[in-house]
Amino acid sequence: MKNNLRPGERLDELHRNGYKIIQNENKFCFGMDAVLLSGFANVKEEEIVLDMGTGTGIVPILLAGKTKGKHFIGLEIQSASADMARRSVIYNHLEERISIVEGDIKEAGTLFKPASFDVITSNPPYMTGSHGLVNPDMEKAIARHEICCTLEDVISQAARLLRVGGRFYLVHRPFRLAEIIHMLVEYKLEPKRIKFVHPFVDKEPNMVLIESVRGAKSRITVEKPLIVYQKQGVYTDEIYDIYGY
Amino acid sequence: MKNNLRPGERLDELHRNGYKIIQNENKFCFGMDAVLLSGFANVKEEEIVLDMGTGTGIVPILLAGKTKGKHFIGLEIQSASADMARRSVIYNHLEERISIVEGDIKEAGTLFKPASFDVITSNPPYMTGSHGLVNPDMEKAIARHEICCTLEDVISQAARLLRVGGRFYLVHRPFRLAEIIHMLVEYKLEPKRIKFVHPFVDKEPNMVLIESVRGAKSRITVEKPLIVYQKQGVYTDEIYDIYGY
Repeated sequence: MKNNLRPGERLDELHRNGYKIIQNENKFCFGMDAVLLSGFANVKEEEIVLDMGTGTGIVPILLAGKTKGKHFIGLEIQSASADMARRSVIYNHLEERISIVEGDIKEAGTLFKPASFDVITSNPPYMTGSHGLVNPDMEKAIARHEICCTLEDVISQAARLLRVGGRFYLVHRPFRLAEIIHMLVEYKLEPKRIKFVHPFVDKEPNMVLIESVRGAKSRITVEKPLIVYQKQGVYTDEIYDIYGY
Repeated sequence: MKNNLRPGERLDELHRNGYKIIQNENKFCFGMDAVLLSGFANVKEEEIVLDMGTGTGIVPILLAGKTKGKHFIGLEIQSASADMARRSVIYNHLEERISIVEGDIKEAGTLFKPASFDVITSNPPYMTGSHGLVNPDMEKAIARHEICCTLEDVISQAARLLRVGGRFYLVHRPFRLAEIIHMLVEYKLEPKRIKFVHPFVDKEPNMVLIESVRGAKSRITVEKPLIVYQKQGVYTDEIYDIYGY
């Protein structure tokens, strides 16, 4: 495998079925948000799953390891990331369960058949033009800022591609919560379950996980918070469990 | 004062400026939600405040004790509650700062001048027709179920009566969070600050406090959770502090 790695790339252990992932430390590497999203998403046997903006394929690879989902498609606009994702799929012998498609989230509704997915996941760019420092490295910037797609692109395309009763799992930043919930309701992706992730038990949340169901009635469960650290530098048992240690 | 109490009524200590409140133990008595709402609401010097569905007047009486707000109006549809509220105002010598108005939230927009309030607070009925057991005692039922007014009545009238930049403080149940946020955004009451109240640190929240600002831009702060009990039967310091012990 070492020979399949390009300059700057490394192979990281995923603690899940022995799977590994190819990443390039000079580009965008997956964060805790992607791992928590894969722990929050509920994929049942035989279900078909789309991950919108899959990057190096972390979410489909983890979900393939954790669930009995039938097939996972990772959609990614950046060639370099999609290429790393494809090589990771091959490395883990997951070619029959995971496909990586290079393409634009804004066109997802035409790339795939409407209402054809049971589950859609997304860890989209968090920042709008007016928030946060835009990364001078364009590949990182596209992963973090709404340059190639907006929140509305992600939500509108997910609404189009999910079957009625299908589930949409989103990880995002709490500061956009009102906008996210308003938009999900507008697109008939009813928020049914929400979990805030707090670095420490006595701190504000810095991530939010939301499960929406297409066409469902309005009633949401706000789950108990997920706390990341029990003390400085020591993860909680729940975090170790999600990571599969 | 004893002579001013009607049969079944009692006088409860509020731990705030020596204020007391008249309640009837056979009717609806205020709960922790009203106290937490008065702790969450931010009322500045000279501001004019409306409490929609004031019951026995707990929120305006506590806010009069805690803040330098100029005038507080408590709007209440039930005569018996409005009468108790008025007698509590007199008992506490607050006639110059608090007025109790008997009237319907649905007509609040015509009872008062549009855009005339700096702050509006509400601890409305939580349950819709399809949720929860309706109390056979009509007075309690009206306080708990959306019999006389719906969430949309409260939010639409608040939007009409608040000045641009004015603040709306709502306490509600988390299971209606998506509906509440969607509706606030629709009525241009932008949610800016939210706090979940958890009975214990490792339990789901059972109350949510939301501050919205009329006409503000979209960006919300999800605050650190408010925990009620440090262990069974023992409140946290934050709760004692809000209660004024």
